[in-house]
Amino acid sequence: MRFLKFFLLAVLATWQGYSQSEDEQQIKAIYNTALTNSESYDWLNYLSNQIGGRLSGSLQAQQAVEYAKSQLDSMGLDRVWLQPVMVPKWVRGTPEFAYVETAPGITTDLPICALGGSVATPLQGIKASIVEVNGIEELKLLGPGKISGKIVFFNKPMDPTELNTFKSYSGCVDQRYAGAKEAAKFGAVGVIVRSLNLRLDDYPHTGTMDYGDTEIPNRIPAAAISTKGAEFLSATLKLSPKANFYFKQNCKVYKDVESYNVIGEIRGSEYPDEVMVVGGHLDSWDLGDGSHDDGAGCVQSMDVLRLLKETGYQPKRTIRVVLFMNEENGLRGGKKYAETANSKNEKHVFALESDAGGFTPRGFSFDCSEANFEQVKRWKPLFEPYLVHLFVKGHSGADIGPLKDDGIVLAGLRPDSQRYFDHHHSENDTFEHVNKRELELGTAAMASLVYLFDKYGIVPTP
Amino acid sequence: MRFLKFFLLAVLATWQGYSQSEDEQQIKAIYNTALTNSESYDWLNYLSNQIGGRLSGSLQAQQAVEYAKSQLDSMGLDRVWLQPVMVPKWVRGTPEFAYVETAPGITTDLPICALGGSVATPLQGIKASIVEVNGIEELKLLGPGKISGKIVFFNKPMDPTELNTFKSYSGCVDQRYAGAKEAAKFGAVGVIVRSLNLRLDDYPHTGTMDYGDTEIPNRIPAAAISTKGAEFLSATLKLSPKANFYFKQNCKVYKDVESYNVIGEIRGSEYPDEVMVVGGHLDSWDLGDGSHDDGAGCVQSMDVLRLLKETGYQPKRTIRVVLFMNEENGLRGGKKYAETANSKNEKHVFALESDAGGFTPRGFSFDCSEANFEQVKRWKPLFEPYLVHLFVKGHSGADIGPLKDDGIVLAGLRPDSQRYFDHHHSENDTFEHVNKRELELGTAAMASLVYLFDKYGIVPTP
Repeated sequence: MRFLKFFLLAVLATWQGYSQSEDEQQIKAIYNTALTNSESYDWLNYLSNQIGGRLSGSLQAQQAVEYAKSQLDSMGLDRVWLQPVMVPKWVRGTPEFAYVETAPGITTDLPICALGGSVATPLQGIKASIVEVNGIEELKLLGPGKISGKIVFFNKPMDPTELNTFKSYSGCVDQRYAGAKEAAKFGAVGVIVRSLNLRLDDYPHTGTMDYGDTEIPNRIPAAAISTKGAEFLSATLKLSPKANFYFKQNCKVYKDVESYNVIGEIRGSEYPDEVMVVGGHLDSWDLGDGSHDDGAGCVQSMDVLRLLKETGYQPKRTIRVVLFMNEENGLRGGKKYAETANSKNEKHVFALESDAGGFTPRGFSFDCSEANFEQVKRWKPLFEPYLVHLFVKGHSGADIGPLKDDGIVLAGLRPDSQRYFDHHHSENDTFEHVNKRELELGTAAMASLVYLFDKYGIVPTP
Repeated sequence: MRFLKFFLLAVLATWQGYSQSEDEQQIKAIYNTALTNSESYDWLNYLSNQIGGRLSGSLQAQQAVEYAKSQLDSMGLDRVWLQPVMVPKWVRGTPEFAYVETAPGITTDLPICALGGSVATPLQGIKASIVEVNGIEELKLLGPGKISGKIVFFNKPMDPTELNTFKSYSGCVDQRYAGAKEAAKFGAVGVIVRSLNLRLDDYPHTGTMDYGDTEIPNRIPAAAISTKGAEFLSATLKLSPKANFYFKQNCKVYKDVESYNVIGEIRGSEYPDEVMVVGGHLDSWDLGDGSHDDGAGCVQSMDVLRLLKETGYQPKRTIRVVLFMNEENGLRGGKKYAETANSKNEKHVFALESDAGGFTPRGFSFDCSEANFEQVKRWKPLFEPYLVHLFVKGHSGADIGPLKDDGIVLAGLRPDSQRYFDHHHSENDTFEHVNKRELELGTAAMASLVYLFDKYGIVPTP
């Protein structure tokens, strides 16, 4: 008995030793290829500098669909296709304009941009006195008496002491998303929201907002103001509490239009019916060129399949790159993909999203069973030489969220988050802020994780 | 016996629990203060944008000495002083100029800069045919027959597959440092060196070079060429092997001048004779403003002392910030500091340098005894919440190197290294490339390590 146990342990050790070394070699090959022969940076250059911001329903979004498909077509995958999906079409219109007026004719212009989905102001703009609140909670404390007829200025800043800047973002994104809906209940005539940016600068940051069940005539326009603008406005209001604020925007919602998720796959050699997804979202906001959000995630995901082919790895399972449409203002692509997968009874075992910028990868977060998380943690040593240390449970990605069920492992790439909100949803999200090596290291980390899940599979749910 | 052991273990556990929690609290206070109330970014703004590049012996270096001293004077330290040190004075002169000539009159200009310490070309410049070599080894294989009368083009690139970019740098810095000396032995008339940059761009990167015992009349001028320039030149030589290269530079070495290390200290409350140093180097190259190399390390080091004071921590040991002069082209400040410490019989127990850029901190490297490294590894969990994972043995810092003896722990901050060589020693090392939060996180990591070494001391060498 004791001998048998010893023998089995020895066999196991040998097998694990061999396997470990094979894994180390494959991951080394992935990293070396990513750092010397990657396409991601060139693809991103094209998406960012030849196409630009790719808001759902725009010409640029359609150009991005065609470009991404043409690149996937050239990669020698087993299948490439477009999955039609109806998406919202919101258009910003001419540049927004705003000022604060401390006395008649004494004005200071301030940088704003309409929030995605907002209605326009009347043609002549809106001028009203303005009330600063520190988030939705404080708005509710003030009530209609102090809000009616006014513009509400949501000025809750992101918490700088949080190391994970996405947590800081979560802590105040409600004022952007639901601020107009809540302020309208108290009779406000407009909403100005501090940009979700930890840095003080002059860029207003847009992002999606929602009126919920607010009746159409009661919907009020909402805009973001740059962080420096917010600081200036707040200081001005302390000196001149009766200051007026003026803003003008002529954004508009059109009818939904047809767009596409762009999909390519390598068919699995042993378990072709087990599908693994790696993806990002192809749409972006319109102000910058969407390099970090989420051009980076798209080109990384495309390059994952290319790296596996370049390194000669033949996947056992079907590996699919999905470039989702309309993450930013509707998530229609993610929902459509999951609906279609369900209706076809496709078995999805793993999905990985990169949608947190093209920065140095620090690790991954996982939305999965304990047993699968335990398996992941055993792989940690394989990532240590590449300074990928962070393996935590948590949010994976918005687009792959609709795939969630008991039998799937969802994962999100976790790049260094310190610079992300300097760029996110603003004119400052541009190609020159993506470092080629950092982008490629993210791709390599993703490809390595996909390789491991393909090779070892997931732990089935009992 | 068994009871006693249990009792002792329980006491130990309680004590460690308490202490751990006190450490956690102090480190949390350091991080929160660094991220909400730091001076480092403003100091760096002044050093970079009001003073600029601070080459040893320059007016700007002197201005930096005065500015840093004035800031330390305002911090309420126990003592602030200037330590005189004689430094080399090398001056670049008017901008360098170079071209490759494939046929008489058919020329393409290429971006170069003189290497620090190089001699000038003759007034009219040098024109000669040019031989490409892949590093010093290949030069030696060619020998005088193929080198004499020519310009040598060292074109060994940094290895992109190395995750630690400083290792890639080490792998080819010899061609910059000693290329001219070696080529002169074979009768070369000049040297052009590929910039030590992993990115393809148009910035030539300078850096120190040395003629060793080459006789003065035999010293040949040496310049760096941008990576794109190097690629272009290499491609040109494949098509036109007889192409001529022309370059002109009028740099000059003057007599040594007096400068200073800038030093401030908080006197220890219990062991004032045990000195702990935290520092960076105040000089920089002249092409950029020296924000990453090493303005960042200077302002972080200054802020370490300020953070300890702000968080109410009273050091047991004497903590000294040292802003070293002349790291780049002589290391005179580091040598002077160590000589003075020796001559005064000062007992230095710990020294930490930040000289790898103001990027997100990944960890520290340690040059110390095994016992001290074991102690450091026990502190790792305290750094995990701040995503500081890397604790390795290795190089600490050039300036603190001369302090090395058996009884000291030397440490170096290890920021993320992917972007460092995009900036290093070039016109592209400027303030806008430093992210405020990344800089502050480095400061906080440094202050936390200084706190732990101050509180627990080092493990004495048996």
